[in-house]
Amino acid sequence: MAEFERAWTKLLGVEKFEALPFPRKQEIELRASRISIPSALSDVCTTEKYERLYHTYGAGTVDVARALRREFRNPPDVIAFPRNEQDVFDLFDWCGRNSYAIIPYGGGTSVVGGVNPPEYDRYRGVVTVNMKHFNRVLEVDEISQSARIQAGVLGPDLEAQLKPAGLTLRFFLQAWEFSSLGGWIATRAAGHFATAYTQIDDHIQSLRVLTPAGVVQAKRFPISGAGPNPDRLFLGSEGALGIISEAWVRLHRRPQFRSMTTVRFKDYDSAVEATRVLSQSGLNPSNARLIEREEAQYTGSSDGTYDILVLGFESADHPVDHRMARALEICKQMGGAWESTGAGEPVDSDRGAKSWREKFVRGPYLREYAIARGVMRETMETAVTWGGFAALREHVKRETHRAIREVTGRRGSVTCRFTHIYPDGPAPYFTWFAYGDKSRIPEQYMAIKRIAEQAMVDAGGTVTHHHALGRDHRPWYDKERPELFCTVLKGAKVALDPGQLLNPGVLFDPS
Amino acid sequence: MAEFERAWTKLLGVEKFEALPFPRKQEIELRASRISIPSALSDVCTTEKYERLYHTYGAGTVDVARALRREFRNPPDVIAFPRNEQDVFDLFDWCGRNSYAIIPYGGGTSVVGGVNPPEYDRYRGVVTVNMKHFNRVLEVDEISQSARIQAGVLGPDLEAQLKPAGLTLRFFLQAWEFSSLGGWIATRAAGHFATAYTQIDDHIQSLRVLTPAGVVQAKRFPISGAGPNPDRLFLGSEGALGIISEAWVRLHRRPQFRSMTTVRFKDYDSAVEATRVLSQSGLNPSNARLIEREEAQYTGSSDGTYDILVLGFESADHPVDHRMARALEICKQMGGAWESTGAGEPVDSDRGAKSWREKFVRGPYLREYAIARGVMRETMETAVTWGGFAALREHVKRETHRAIREVTGRRGSVTCRFTHIYPDGPAPYFTWFAYGDKSRIPEQYMAIKRIAEQAMVDAGGTVTHHHALGRDHRPWYDKERPELFCTVLKGAKVALDPGQLLNPGVLFDPS
Repeated sequence: MAEFERAWTKLLGVEKFEALPFPRKQEIELRASRISIPSALSDVCTTEKYERLYHTYGAGTVDVARALRREFRNPPDVIAFPRNEQDVFDLFDWCGRNSYAIIPYGGGTSVVGGVNPPEYDRYRGVVTVNMKHFNRVLEVDEISQSARIQAGVLGPDLEAQLKPAGLTLRFFLQAWEFSSLGGWIATRAAGHFATAYTQIDDHIQSLRVLTPAGVVQAKRFPISGAGPNPDRLFLGSEGALGIISEAWVRLHRRPQFRSMTTVRFKDYDSAVEATRVLSQSGLNPSNARLIEREEAQYTGSSDGTYDILVLGFESADHPVDHRMARALEICKQMGGAWESTGAGEPVDSDRGAKSWREKFVRGPYLREYAIARGVMRETMETAVTWGGFAALREHVKRETHRAIREVTGRRGSVTCRFTHIYPDGPAPYFTWFAYGDKSRIPEQYMAIKRIAEQAMVDAGGTVTHHHALGRDHRPWYDKERPELFCTVLKGAKVALDPGQLLNPGVLFDPS
Repeated sequence: MAEFERAWTKLLGVEKFEALPFPRKQEIELRASRISIPSALSDVCTTEKYERLYHTYGAGTVDVARALRREFRNPPDVIAFPRNEQDVFDLFDWCGRNSYAIIPYGGGTSVVGGVNPPEYDRYRGVVTVNMKHFNRVLEVDEISQSARIQAGVLGPDLEAQLKPAGLTLRFFLQAWEFSSLGGWIATRAAGHFATAYTQIDDHIQSLRVLTPAGVVQAKRFPISGAGPNPDRLFLGSEGALGIISEAWVRLHRRPQFRSMTTVRFKDYDSAVEATRVLSQSGLNPSNARLIEREEAQYTGSSDGTYDILVLGFESADHPVDHRMARALEICKQMGGAWESTGAGEPVDSDRGAKSWREKFVRGPYLREYAIARGVMRETMETAVTWGGFAALREHVKRETHRAIREVTGRRGSVTCRFTHIYPDGPAPYFTWFAYGDKSRIPEQYMAIKRIAEQAMVDAGGTVTHHHALGRDHRPWYDKERPELFCTVLKGAKVALDPGQLLNPGVLFDPS
């Protein structure tokens, strides 16, 4: 923490940080459960206090800050851990008969209010469903490089089970350790690949979804041209249309060839231009993270006088030197420079990347400690066309700086990197830091976020590239999606979940 | 024709072909139009005989055979050529008030009964809509390599308008000359790229769709993670949910580097294995058509003792020699051989490819002539996992041979090639030839198709990779898609087209 505190001092001009103590179970006054569990479901359900506390929140700033305030005003009444599909259907029946809302919890890493119990009068209680017992790789088709996997499995367990076959999903998002395959699918998560296999969507062969109206099981094909793709209805459905039970997913072989280097740019616009050309080159780098100098400096990858492009290639089949060489040629044309050997070859140096990766992996562990010290470290991601990017970045940075100053009375930090790149535009990822009033973090955070998010959307970006919508992004999503498409989604809800039990308030309000 | 007739003689054991004469407008007795055009729509609509004849059918075997029988039993009553979106909405209103069905015609190249007027009692007439006036590229964003294009434009016109910007959609399907962007989108067509950019889906940034309930206009992003993707509802909607007015599409720069060669394999299973390894290599060949020896012989690309893999790479950015070299290394390991220079480099020979491409491009011109001679040349395409392919091929070939013999009393030909390959499976494309009774082609064709298609589906293939569903594929589609997903689609229909005007009978029956 000392290292981070020194960095925050520099960033925010705060001399000394004092941390609120983390809450303990016994300090919290918890509302009694409004639900009594029938004996038929007693093996599957619990009202135990810690579980109810744990499942009250996701992993967003507001969630953590409320927990630090010992504020668990609206906890779920019951936590269910179904062991099999029949348990899930029994839960649907029971909740349907009693008007209990059902919150599919995934791994609980939502940063957008996706798993928080709703507060609509029509529900007489809330049952949060944790699918952690659905944690097995059921079938591996090595020749077709794919596997049938239960949706409750978390990242590390999934990879451990695939390892004996020499296969991997290679879907390493920041929450990888804590989030589930089903959660990735429901929220259209994006992994670490900068190109080609960015979204979980690209890995899905077919889904099996449980709904109060029955099972939706798509057939398994590499691809099909038969009508609208049924799985696409559930990719991004955020738990509102069903609970994903299992999926056939596409896998990769483990990479045998890698090349990684860090390119420095003195001029940011040239760095963007190089990255754009790369994105349209067909070279498909696995990593192409352009990181602004301020952000690179914070993570120790730049002295603040240059921006860096963390560039990587990997392949399970063939050497990637030619691709790296061509990518560096493109960078050089735009003024990029990199460490090279006497022969002019790039040093296969992972330093910038390593430094960045360490911060990346540590990120989820840091949030609680930062917020306890009044430090809001928030990220907002989007995607925009190359043509629209420069204006978007400028507008978002200006507006977010303004918001931080207005809300906290102090300066903050706002920086941008690319997490993913597409031939038609980048996915810019903004990180902002602000020093808030420890007793009012949720309110201050939302006040800043409202302005920052609005700026991003006003400048032509989507409300989310991969953090999903939850309840926090609804105001912008409501304007982003075509109104008639929402009517269609509501129709799907009526067909699949006529009692409107599932995750009410994401995508749209219950009627 | 003489060349083809000689080939058919060899293939089908028929000595001499006699052709039915093509029909002429004046020979056809056409039912009077049941619709009188109101003066407000007289600029947009016609009941002219030729137009009604022309728009009665798509381009399938049954369509052509019925036309050859002078059978135009169920023509559309009116053909509409809207000039702008208001015209389309006026048509919706008019048809809604009068219970006329609306058939979006695209380019009319459906081979699956996708544009044939339906015969449900609830409709008092049929208006076929031809969007040919929606033929302009409206906007090109060069830096983001994308363009906003009206959906009625046909392939050649589209490319001609993009050419000045140095950009191209490079979506060269067999019907390219005759089919429209909107048709490709509505039917999830596939282009000539064997990997990476196979379906039109991969090229869509955002759609603008006109429905009787209003406009559905998605926002334009390189990608978004905000809820289920609205455009995916219309990709494959086959005209049943709306008429696509325009789309923002992703473009490519024109290729500067190419390499193309033909690899011969003595053993088919080894050729499949090589192609599978290629599909999982990340090399992304633009062409990887594995053609069985019988089919390669028919097209003049093999002497019948070896199968061929037409292999191609292209890039607008960098030489592709390294990729070709690695691909050939893979082929060599599986026993592949190719023409090479003294130095062992592959001869950049286009011969096999050229021969194949010529046949490919001539294809659409040939159908009428073949059918007039009693020659049914039919194609069925699917996609299946690598693990399932061998059994599928065997089953489809055996069953289709059996069907041809049972139905026509003669031997036929059934061959297989791959049109597209994916890391998890190929898209096999079956071509069958049978010599039928010229007066009963539609009935014989459907009898053979029923058995052949059933075999494909029974063996684990999808009912269609890129020919779409139309009305002909409904029996199999009804079993392929999840039942509850159909309920959702029907709900979408109610929301967007409450009068059930649009293309009734595709996807599902009107209620």
